[in-house]
Amino acid sequence: MESQKTIGIIGGGQLGRMLTLAALPLGFKVVVVNPSAGSPAAQVGAEEIVADLYDPKALQELAERSDYITIEIEHLDVDAIDSIAKLGTPVNPAPSIIRIIQDKFAQKEFLAAAGIPVAPFVAIESEKDAIEALKKFDGKMLLKTRLGAYDGRGNMVVASAADIKEAFERFNGTPLYAEAYIPFERELAVMVARSMRDEIALYPIVQTIHERNICIEVLAPAPVSDDIHERAAAIANSVAELLQGAGTFGIEMFLTNTGDILINEIAPRVHNSGHYTTEASRTSQFEQHVRAISDLPLGDTSMVVPAAVMVNILGEHDRPTIITGLQDSLSIPATSVHLYGKFPTKIDRKMGHITATASTIEEARKRARAARKLISL
Amino acid sequence: MESQKTIGIIGGGQLGRMLTLAALPLGFKVVVVNPSAGSPAAQVGAEEIVADLYDPKALQELAERSDYITIEIEHLDVDAIDSIAKLGTPVNPAPSIIRIIQDKFAQKEFLAAAGIPVAPFVAIESEKDAIEALKKFDGKMLLKTRLGAYDGRGNMVVASAADIKEAFERFNGTPLYAEAYIPFERELAVMVARSMRDEIALYPIVQTIHERNICIEVLAPAPVSDDIHERAAAIANSVAELLQGAGTFGIEMFLTNTGDILINEIAPRVHNSGHYTTEASRTSQFEQHVRAISDLPLGDTSMVVPAAVMVNILGEHDRPTIITGLQDSLSIPATSVHLYGKFPTKIDRKMGHITATASTIEEARKRARAARKLISL
Repeated sequence: MESQKTIGIIGGGQLGRMLTLAALPLGFKVVVVNPSAGSPAAQVGAEEIVADLYDPKALQELAERSDYITIEIEHLDVDAIDSIAKLGTPVNPAPSIIRIIQDKFAQKEFLAAAGIPVAPFVAIESEKDAIEALKKFDGKMLLKTRLGAYDGRGNMVVASAADIKEAFERFNGTPLYAEAYIPFERELAVMVARSMRDEIALYPIVQTIHERNICIEVLAPAPVSDDIHERAAAIANSVAELLQGAGTFGIEMFLTNTGDILINEIAPRVHNSGHYTTEASRTSQFEQHVRAISDLPLGDTSMVVPAAVMVNILGEHDRPTIITGLQDSLSIPATSVHLYGKFPTKIDRKMGHITATASTIEEARKRARAARKLISL
Repeated sequence: MESQKTIGIIGGGQLGRMLTLAALPLGFKVVVVNPSAGSPAAQVGAEEIVADLYDPKALQELAERSDYITIEIEHLDVDAIDSIAKLGTPVNPAPSIIRIIQDKFAQKEFLAAAGIPVAPFVAIESEKDAIEALKKFDGKMLLKTRLGAYDGRGNMVVASAADIKEAFERFNGTPLYAEAYIPFERELAVMVARSMRDEIALYPIVQTIHERNICIEVLAPAPVSDDIHERAAAIANSVAELLQGAGTFGIEMFLTNTGDILINEIAPRVHNSGHYTTEASRTSQFEQHVRAISDLPLGDTSMVVPAAVMVNILGEHDRPTIITGLQDSLSIPATSVHLYGKFPTKIDRKMGHITATASTIEEARKRARAARKLISL
């Protein structure tokens, strides 16, 4: 149908899938680029260009077929995306901000230069730099890869020359930087949205819990004081004003043991810490992102329930996927299950998530954890 | 993937589409039978068997490919569906109740026999029967086709012998029956769900507004007294206990000018009066129906907002579909738009719906109507 617009997404995984589910009812067609066929996004109606996300011909084709382009992952060839944007298809968020964000050191410099509070950090070119940094950071610090990291790959705590040696072996020539190791009381996060018309909308501050550097649980809203909610929202708003282009961005923060709020990282896309919005918010982060990047107004970010807790369904085996216990899981009150259509199951692979709602965080958490125990993939 | 179950739906229109959107995140595959390719349901990831819904070979194939079969429309060959059910694939709701419901006279007899309040009605075999009925019903009554009616086709108010003659010409040999013309204060409706484990869940009572016999607006919850909510829910519960098989059913009611509640009609499927549940309820009618017919527990039917109003987007022209005004429509606060992927636009064709939420019905209604005015298909 002539007037139907097409949204092109670089990446067809679970985030592309949930973006597709939000885009189709708004009348859009969706095309994704994905390295393998039958992607999670294609299973829910996206057309598919099967190609590596770095394949310039594939990105060119995406641009030809799309009215608006966006991403579900920041680890991309920004030069290629820049070229597409210059040909005329709007790309959001802006390639310039993807470029800054995908290099975590550049990201930190960008934030620090704007006065946004971050953990102390320093460039690392060699093991010698790392040893000096370790002294500067009181004998314990994080060595992090600048590029390509997700779900904890690319982070290592180092506290000795031996650790540093091991890190350099593990990271094998990848550009690195170092960050002070800041003991924190808890981790917070917030989704912010920017439209193509410069509107900004914030979702509530949430708390995230990680194990093995992977997000395992999200509590919405964060069970912290109003003061912390306000301070975190103010910092998030400052970050939102700095960002470039449109879209939904995930901002991860630390609440330190001394009560300071530091920005940890930004993701220029929909984010695990925002999955709860599908059941708990008037506009899900996925619909919000679709609106943001297709020149539509932003939607209401209010919560529609008092409390929501999301738990990830991480794979517990390396084996073909067999879904068991869905019945038991869904017998828990006010509980929703999202399976991503990813096969096979791999250890710690994000296979789906569960969101439970309730009048309190404690009750929602009990429900979500109970439901998680009952299902297996 | 071996353990993935498949839901088969007879019909791939907007109801099948919204069922598919609810089923895929629960890990199901979906297959639909639809008379034309590229159905609304296929656009969101359902596989498609392109065939007439009465084609026994197509239904056979659906049964072979599905673990659970359900329907999005009651105008079907129940004998064929019965045969499939007897081969072993669960069909819900039960073919027996589809058979009763699809014949509106049989439906009325079924309800009346169980003591459920309905408008007085009588069988009609000839124009002579109709003329006698007109006397019995005080000079004004409804002549209705027993089979195949939807969105008002198949209803005619008659108040004279001339009207009766016209009706018989229009309905041309189709089996008919007559109903007393009961002036009503307003129309109510409620979605009820029955699981395969005999759970019953009721949604709130809503008010429906019709023009040209088509649903145009739904107010949730109905702005009527608690007493009416309770009485209507009690009657709906009695109906729910009578029904057979699993699924979500739409129960339409009249609140008469004398304060009585009468059952008008039942739909053995998800229903226009339940579309508001997608934004306004903890479990949408679509997810509820998927749970009900696939041996999963029913979900929470609480509302998550104080008030919701749905307005249908009915086609205003006979012409190719051009979506305009989506931007303006979505600038209305707390407003969601669902387009069905149906082309071309035809006058009074259900092209989509809008649901607005707010703290009061009045505000939600203002928002929904404003949004409706701003969009065009």
